[in-house]
This record gives sequence, structure tokens and C-alpha cells, in this order.
Amino acid sequence: MDLHELTRQLNTKNDSKIVMYVGDGLGGLPQHPGGKTELETAQTPNLDKLATEGISGGSLPVAHGISPGSGPGHLGLFGYDPLKYLIGRGALEATGIGFELKEGDVAIRANFCTVDDAGNITDRRAGRLPTEESAPLAVKLREVSIPNVEIFVEPVKEHRFVLVLRGTGVNEGKLNGNVHDTDPQATGVPPLAAQAAEPDSKVTAEICDEFVKQARVLLAGQPKANCCTLRGVASKPSLPSYEEVYGLRAAAIAVYPMYKGLAQLVGMDILGEAKTLDEQMQVLKENWDAYDFFFIHFKYTDSTGEDGDFDAKVKRTEDYDAAVPQIMELGPDVFIATGDHSTPAMLASHSWHPVPTLLWAKNCRPDGCDSFGEDQCLRGGLGQFEAKHLMTLALANAGRLAKFGA
Amino acid sequence: MDLHELTRQLNTKNDSKIVMYVGDGLGGLPQHPGGKTELETAQTPNLDKLATEGISGGSLPVAHGISPGSGPGHLGLFGYDPLKYLIGRGALEATGIGFELKEGDVAIRANFCTVDDAGNITDRRAGRLPTEESAPLAVKLREVSIPNVEIFVEPVKEHRFVLVLRGTGVNEGKLNGNVHDTDPQATGVPPLAAQAAEPDSKVTAEICDEFVKQARVLLAGQPKANCCTLRGVASKPSLPSYEEVYGLRAAAIAVYPMYKGLAQLVGMDILGEAKTLDEQMQVLKENWDAYDFFFIHFKYTDSTGEDGDFDAKVKRTEDYDAAVPQIMELGPDVFIATGDHSTPAMLASHSWHPVPTLLWAKNCRPDGCDSFGEDQCLRGGLGQFEAKHLMTLALANAGRLAKFGA
Repeated sequence: MDLHELTRQLNTKNDSKIVMYVGDGLGGLPQHPGGKTELETAQTPNLDKLATEGISGGSLPVAHGISPGSGPGHLGLFGYDPLKYLIGRGALEATGIGFELKEGDVAIRANFCTVDDAGNITDRRAGRLPTEESAPLAVKLREVSIPNVEIFVEPVKEHRFVLVLRGTGVNEGKLNGNVHDTDPQATGVPPLAAQAAEPDSKVTAEICDEFVKQARVLLAGQPKANCCTLRGVASKPSLPSYEEVYGLRAAAIAVYPMYKGLAQLVGMDILGEAKTLDEQMQVLKENWDAYDFFFIHFKYTDSTGEDGDFDAKVKRTEDYDAAVPQIMELGPDVFIATGDHSTPAMLASHSWHPVPTLLWAKNCRPDGCDSFGEDQCLRGGLGQFEAKHLMTLALANAGRLAKFGA
Repeated sequence: MDLHELTRQLNTKNDSKIVMYVGDGLGGLPQHPGGKTELETAQTPNLDKLATEGISGGSLPVAHGISPGSGPGHLGLFGYDPLKYLIGRGALEATGIGFELKEGDVAIRANFCTVDDAGNITDRRAGRLPTEESAPLAVKLREVSIPNVEIFVEPVKEHRFVLVLRGTGVNEGKLNGNVHDTDPQATGVPPLAAQAAEPDSKVTAEICDEFVKQARVLLAGQPKANCCTLRGVASKPSLPSYEEVYGLRAAAIAVYPMYKGLAQLVGMDILGEAKTLDEQMQVLKENWDAYDFFFIHFKYTDSTGEDGDFDAKVKRTEDYDAAVPQIMELGPDVFIATGDHSTPAMLASHSWHPVPTLLWAKNCRPDGCDSFGEDQCLRGGLGQFEAKHLMTLALANAGRLAKFGA
């Protein structure tokens, strides 16, 4: 019996509210030996107070030593085992630009490339042509027409675009992501033909080839982007919804498309068009009565970490803290502050270190923590735990889980 | 997706060096209530310094409450789930005496026994005859000749010897370990015939019976060892190599055959013929450039624990510590000190207690530990973890794991 079999069986409804407030890349490292981390350096009086009343711990997004991307990082927080639910690269790319994938869709990361008269690739990234040049070309590719397939082409950045194939008519429900990349990962050779990895992927592979064939006609004469390669072919991941597994009406309040997309994959409603944390809090307030669970995503603890800017991450962590009272005054029953992974400024990248996590609710067993930071979390009452367990703890603390067994 | 699927997918190469320095049976217990363990009593300035800079924790070799033998203990440290990869007794016995098993070999623990004129066992261990008497008899059994089988007989201690069957000709690749013991575990009855547990083991069972039949002829007239029984029939375990699962060129520097054998099972090269820890360190130095990963095994923290000699274990622990500078001056990127299990002198046996473990690397998050011992490890930043996760942590800290997912 896995976690979701448990929560499907045990979840009960009440009028409690759960808020999961995610500071992306929240965990860090000291800037110098003996020093403090970004979170420990930041002034976070609001989170410190909640840590004193609640319970703290260290969340392992996937497993010991594994540095996750945003996809597995968030799936873990949402309670979906990131080693079981894998999101293909194409599906994640489409999700990341806000494309709403439907059941049966196949999403593909595509690159413009340059080929010579013999059809051999001379530049796998078409000279990294600027987005102003590549975006109109991507839009032009919407002219490709293949029977029984709806085709979506969405510009991304520079040489990249997203291709989504949606089967219609005889192809409805027949397409899938088991097709190998057509990028040969080399120059001086032609793009590969699309190869089906499984017999039932032949139709999808043929459509991929037909797309590239027509694209070459549409791109003929372009100085740089006169061809394209297809990579990371992936079916829309099939994830049970929050309503199904937890009995929760769930909503996401995020600024960036990637996080809206990930939330959508687990059936959350995407609320508002907030561009700032204050606007996110406004959206939360306006929708407070309509949902049981809110996922609020704050990006800048990660982006400053990725930039390797310790001080900026400290500042952004203080912004993250400063918004907390706006959540708490709404009276949530369970409040969780955590991250999808650590992004220490010292590493300027996602890392494997446990993520500081605090859970505040009425019936937390006291753990002696009196501030929110990596060192305190290490000694906290939640111990070190895999992120996928956090949702079960949230439900329990919200009084939404019945007893297991008699 | 299991841990090795992850590491196969994510491992990347660089020029980092990882050293896993295993003090066999390292963990202990206080000699009296309120006292210190062997490791806490020992003066270990070198490990204490590394614990201050690195991160500590308690390793569970297999699972809570499980006291492992050397086989599962080391498999866990090597990152091979000891509940998934089982090494049959015969294979472990052969490994323990330094016999290099080949793919398809079947290894068997054999006992000399005494039977009466009616063929009933009168002594299951042939009066525990001394090794000086038993070894020549084991060598004599090499005269057994069976078509399409290469037969190896290796003396062990007292009444024990190892029998290895290697199929040739029509039997090549046809033998396996699914054969029941022939020891009836009782006297007054004859040895059992070898019984195949699976239909495809019939040939192996017949070979076992033929071996015993010929052995009885060769041993006829011996006053004690005039027959033998076969136990723990086991195929060579099939383990993926360090190179396959981690992308590591790995080497083992051990004194005792058992640990060389275990390392060989996971594809490590066995270096040198060191007889002392100083010689082991010399071998390490000489081979430093040729490998990415070194497993160094120190036996005496276990053997003194097994002897129930607290003070001797303290002394041997100090020897273990004293060699650390010779490792560190080579400049490893990741240094791990741990054990394959605990062997408290108070129990004079392997135990289930978590094993003190320290990981030293550049980007460890500080955990406030300032010495190496059971009590500090309990509060350390690695928490309590299953040993199989240690290799993933080692790879992460060596910068040898790419991000999981985008």
C-alpha cells in the first residue's frame, strides 16, 4: 500500500485550510566556515515565531544526495513520489511555458538548427539566433498540416521551441512519447529520422518526421534556422489529482508558468495573474473561502541562489518572511514553510542538502526550536524526512485523516 | 526507479577522489551505565577534526534492529541494497577464503563428518578434527572427477572446506545454487541425497551426489573424516559493478580475503598485499592517481569487539584514527569514516546499533559536531540513514551527480 492508497482511503472532509508556502531553493550553506546560512542570516521574525510554536525538520526532496530539478522537487512536496512519477523533458518544457497539456498530448522540445545543401547539420543551435528572430519562425511552423493531428508550436527562447501533437480522429489517444531524439548530437551529419522506441509509437514517429519535412519547406532559405531537431518526446504525465488522493480542493498562486504548470498537473486550480508577492497574497485573500489547500510559490530565494548572490538571497528570504502575517491573519489550520530543494548561493545551483521545513498547526508536539533555519531544523521534531511525507502530515494536522485500521 | 537506476542515469565523471575508510564493527556500547563507548573513549584527534568540519550521522547497515554479517554489512556501504542482493552462504564462504568465483560457478560449504558402517552419521563435524589433519584430506578430494565439471576443493578450518563446481562442455552455464543442504542436522541418520529445489537444478544436485559418492571412496578408512555433507549451495551473486552504477574506477585495499572478495564482487580492483595499516596506506599512495574511489578496510575494531575486549578495541580504534593523516595528505575530495556494523565489546558480537559515520567534504552543511563518536553522530546532520544511501551522498559531495529532472 503506497502513500496515496492510504490517503485515498483515509481522507475525510472538514472546513480546515492548509497553506503550503514554498520558498524555491530555500535551503543554503554558510558563506564561510563557521558562518550562517542565508536563512539563518536573514531576519525572519514571523517564521521564527511559527517555528517556536510549530515543528521543524529537514526535507529530502527525492533521496539522500539527489539534487532535484523543479519538477521532482515540487512533485515531492505535493506528495507524489518523484521516483515513481517521472515527467518527460518535453512535458516539463511545455508546462514551463504555461502550455496546458491535455490527456494524450505528446510534447516535444525542438531546436532550430542549420543544415548545409547536403542536409548535414552545420550548427545544432542555429547560431543561437535571438528570440526576436526565432519566435516568428516558430509561429510560421504552425502552418504545418498533418491529417488527424492538431499541432501546436510555441516559441521559447533563442533556438528553442515547443511542439505539441494532439491526436484527433483515428489518432485520438494513439500518440505517445516513446520516440527517440532526432538530434544526432553532432555536426556534419543529417538530423536522425524519428525512431519509435516501442511498436505502438510508430504513428507518433511518422508524424514527427512529417513535421520536420514540412518545416524544412517552410524554413527554406532561412540563413540560420533552416531546419529543426526534436528532443525529449514525452506524453503528458498522468497524475491523480489532489481531489482524488487527498479530497482537497486545491489552488496554486504562482508568478511563473513552470510552477503553475506543475500545480495544474496535480489538478490544482491556478488563481490570478499576480506578479508580486503582495499581489499573490491579495489573490489568496480573495479566494480563501473557495479552497481547502493553497500552494503559494515564491521564486526569488532560488534565482538569487542560482546567481550565487548570498546577500540577495538573504534579502529575498526576508521578503518571503515579511509576507507571512498576511497568510496567518486569514487563520489557516495548517501552515507549512518549505522549499522544493536547496539552492546554496555558495554552489550557485540546486543541491542535495535537506530543506528547512516548518509545520505550524494546533497540535504540534513541541520540539524546542525557537527560530527557522538549517541548524534548528536539524534538531527539530520532524527529523529528516522524504518530502513526499509532508502532505500526509499536513492532512493529519488538519484533522483530515481517519484512523488506519481498527 | 531504485537508487542504482538513479546513479546510472545521473553519474558524471570528474577528477575527484573518494575514500571510504571502514573500521569493521566500529560502533560500540558503554562498558558501564553512564560510561563512554569504545570510540568515545579512544583518543581520535584526527577524526574529531574531520567531524568538526564535516557532517556526522548513524548508518543502519540493513534496517532497524538487524545485526548484519560482513556480507550484507559491506554491500550496504557499497550502496547495494542488502535486502535485494543476497549472497548465498557458499558464495560468501568461497569469497572469504579468497577464491575468485566466476560467472556461473556454484559454491558450497562442506563439512567432513563421521559415518558408521551402516552409513549413519555419528559426528556431524568429524570430531572437529584439527586443520592440520583436515586440510590434506580436502586436497585429496581434488581427485574427484566428474565429466563436464571443473571441481575446486579448498581447505578451510577444522572440519570445513569449500567446494566449487564450474560447469564445462554441456554443463557450461547450466549449474546453479538451487539445491538443498545434504546435512540432516542430526546423527543416527545417513546424509541426505542432494535435492533440487527447482527443476533446472537437477544436474547440479546429481553432481553433488556424485561428488559425495567419490569422496566416500577417497576417505574410506579415515577414522574421523570418512564422509562429508554439503550446505549453503549458492551461485555466484550477480552484482553490477562500481563502474556500471557509479562510473567510478574503484579499488580495495584490505588485508583479509573476505573483504577483498566482497570488493571484487562489485568490480573493485584489489590492490597490493598489505599486511598492516601502514602498508595499506603505502598501497593507497602508490595507486592514488589510478582510481576514483578507494575502499580501505581495517579489521581489528571488529575482532577486538568480538573478543569482548573493550580496552583492546579502544586501542585499535586509536590505530584506526592514527592512519587518517596519511589519507588526508593525499587530498581526497570526499572522505568517509564508517563501519559495516557495530561490534560492541559488551556484546562480543555484531549488533544492530547504528554505526558512527562521518563524511568530510567541501560543501557539508555544518552540524555542530566537534568529535567523532556515537553520541555526537546521533545529533549529526546526516541523521540516521540506511547505509545504502552513503554512496549517493559520496557522489553528490564529489560533484559526480547531475541534477535529477529539470
